[in-house]
Amino acid sequence: MINKLVANIKKTGAPIVVGLDPMLNYIPKHVQDKAFAEYGETLEGAAEAIWQFNKEIVDKTYDLIPAVKPQIAMYEQFGIPGLAAFKKTVDYCKEKGLVVIGDIKRGDIGSTSAAYAVGHVGRVQVGSKTYVPFDEDFVTVNPYLGSDGVKPFVDVCKEEKKGLFILVKTSNPSSGEFQDRLIDGRPLYELVGEKVAEWGSEHMGDEYSYVGAVVGATYPEMGKVLRKVMPKSYILVPGYGAQGGKGKDLVHFFNEDGLGAIINSSRGIIAAYKQEAYAKYGEENFGDASRAAVEDMIADIRESLEQK
Amino acid sequence: MINKLVANIKKTGAPIVVGLDPMLNYIPKHVQDKAFAEYGETLEGAAEAIWQFNKEIVDKTYDLIPAVKPQIAMYEQFGIPGLAAFKKTVDYCKEKGLVVIGDIKRGDIGSTSAAYAVGHVGRVQVGSKTYVPFDEDFVTVNPYLGSDGVKPFVDVCKEEKKGLFILVKTSNPSSGEFQDRLIDGRPLYELVGEKVAEWGSEHMGDEYSYVGAVVGATYPEMGKVLRKVMPKSYILVPGYGAQGGKGKDLVHFFNEDGLGAIINSSRGIIAAYKQEAYAKYGEENFGDASRAAVEDMIADIRESLEQK
Repeated sequence: MINKLVANIKKTGAPIVVGLDPMLNYIPKHVQDKAFAEYGETLEGAAEAIWQFNKEIVDKTYDLIPAVKPQIAMYEQFGIPGLAAFKKTVDYCKEKGLVVIGDIKRGDIGSTSAAYAVGHVGRVQVGSKTYVPFDEDFVTVNPYLGSDGVKPFVDVCKEEKKGLFILVKTSNPSSGEFQDRLIDGRPLYELVGEKVAEWGSEHMGDEYSYVGAVVGATYPEMGKVLRKVMPKSYILVPGYGAQGGKGKDLVHFFNEDGLGAIINSSRGIIAAYKQEAYAKYGEENFGDASRAAVEDMIADIRESLEQK
Repeated sequence: MINKLVANIKKTGAPIVVGLDPMLNYIPKHVQDKAFAEYGETLEGAAEAIWQFNKEIVDKTYDLIPAVKPQIAMYEQFGIPGLAAFKKTVDYCKEKGLVVIGDIKRGDIGSTSAAYAVGHVGRVQVGSKTYVPFDEDFVTVNPYLGSDGVKPFVDVCKEEKKGLFILVKTSNPSSGEFQDRLIDGRPLYELVGEKVAEWGSEHMGDEYSYVGAVVGATYPEMGKVLRKVMPKSYILVPGYGAQGGKGKDLVHFFNEDGLGAIINSSRGIIAAYKQEAYAKYGEENFGDASRAAVEDMIADIRESLEQK
């Protein structure tokens, strides 16, 4: 699946991923009204609004982008119907040829991590049958529990040719509280990065490993160091746009081959119609605003990489 | 909810929690057969088997115990039907008067952590209506992202009088890979423990904080230190029984008042009928075997505390 991700990136020339993190207040009123008219102001109604919103954005952007990253929390908050909308979104994006990164940030130990892994990137056995419950291509994983927590995911990914992005240095302001603390003179995130390289060496694709890392766009200097610590790992970079990261901050997340990083934008794309720059499209045409925002983001990153 | 947990512990005299972590191979054949006869060898069939298994164990043990801890991964692996069985289990346990600790180990940042929090321990707004999607009493949270990741959970818990257990020192063999690393001469888990005490001071119940910690039974010496670092935090202690922890290892997780810790056992209770000690009950009477295992666990811990 890392090979497909790299191929999609080369094909589109766009090392970006659209974060499908729908908050209800991002969803235009006409979409909400229609869903509520059908299902009422219920969890099912919210799930339908999310699904219709996602579908429009995917329909208007899928030919420009290699991948999407639905954030499961935004679906899980609407309970079972919300999670059904997550699954519907995953399936639809895969039909459209997109690589789907499930931003689930799971992490547990042993058989419990294995259960998350089979549920999201593997297949589960029921009697004599097997099923692929959520069937994302990649998932994000939290490393706090160490190798016991990550290895069961790697094992399932090996069987399924799927992949992981391990949290290394997150984009939020307080990420330094633990991640930056020095251990033998080096920050914790570097030690986690080394482990990512080690876990990744066990599951290599053609050019890059199936085991990648998450490093926030908001910490470009750390990205530069981590790029060298994990040369064969794709770096998934959140924090572009709304969280403050700009194209020029991102160049050091990439390798010399122009590959090795994929930049996520969520709100900046899916709620583009709310920004002044894209207001001309109007709320009715929110999908067109998202397409324009994707084009601008690709241009910004491409220009920054050319000036590198 | 921490007050209810403490009250339940005092009432039952049993500082224990039963981990409802059903693997299909723990579930007796007659329960699986019945579920598959009704729903086929499908995700729905697996979910029904899990639900019937849980119900029998809860029915046979609820009067002895203060709380249960369903591990959501074991349900999530069966997709949407599995998560529906999780929700059904949460609701049923609450009807029975049990405190429900959702072992979800979530953790993200800002609005994303808030989404997990409203989904699991809060209420979500849909138009003019509000819903309580999963409605556990406590959830477990991963601290790797720092205060930005935990505070949104604390905020929701304050509104709802619900609580958290933050991963501090996990029970698995490789937990030391990151958690034990020394920072200014002290292990990372101690720094996390200090943060738990700080976050917890913002949301106090009568005797204990709504913000507790997870510390593995397999590390009793570290439990002793962490008990002092977080005097007002309940410690949820996994790793008893199957993972190797014994009653005598656990005494230092408790405060002088005999409170402050709650010991989890999962496989040791729910799959008790598979152990030689409880084989006499037979697979048909797996619930009675679980009840006997609960009684033995309570006796082991009570005896250890008396000898402290």
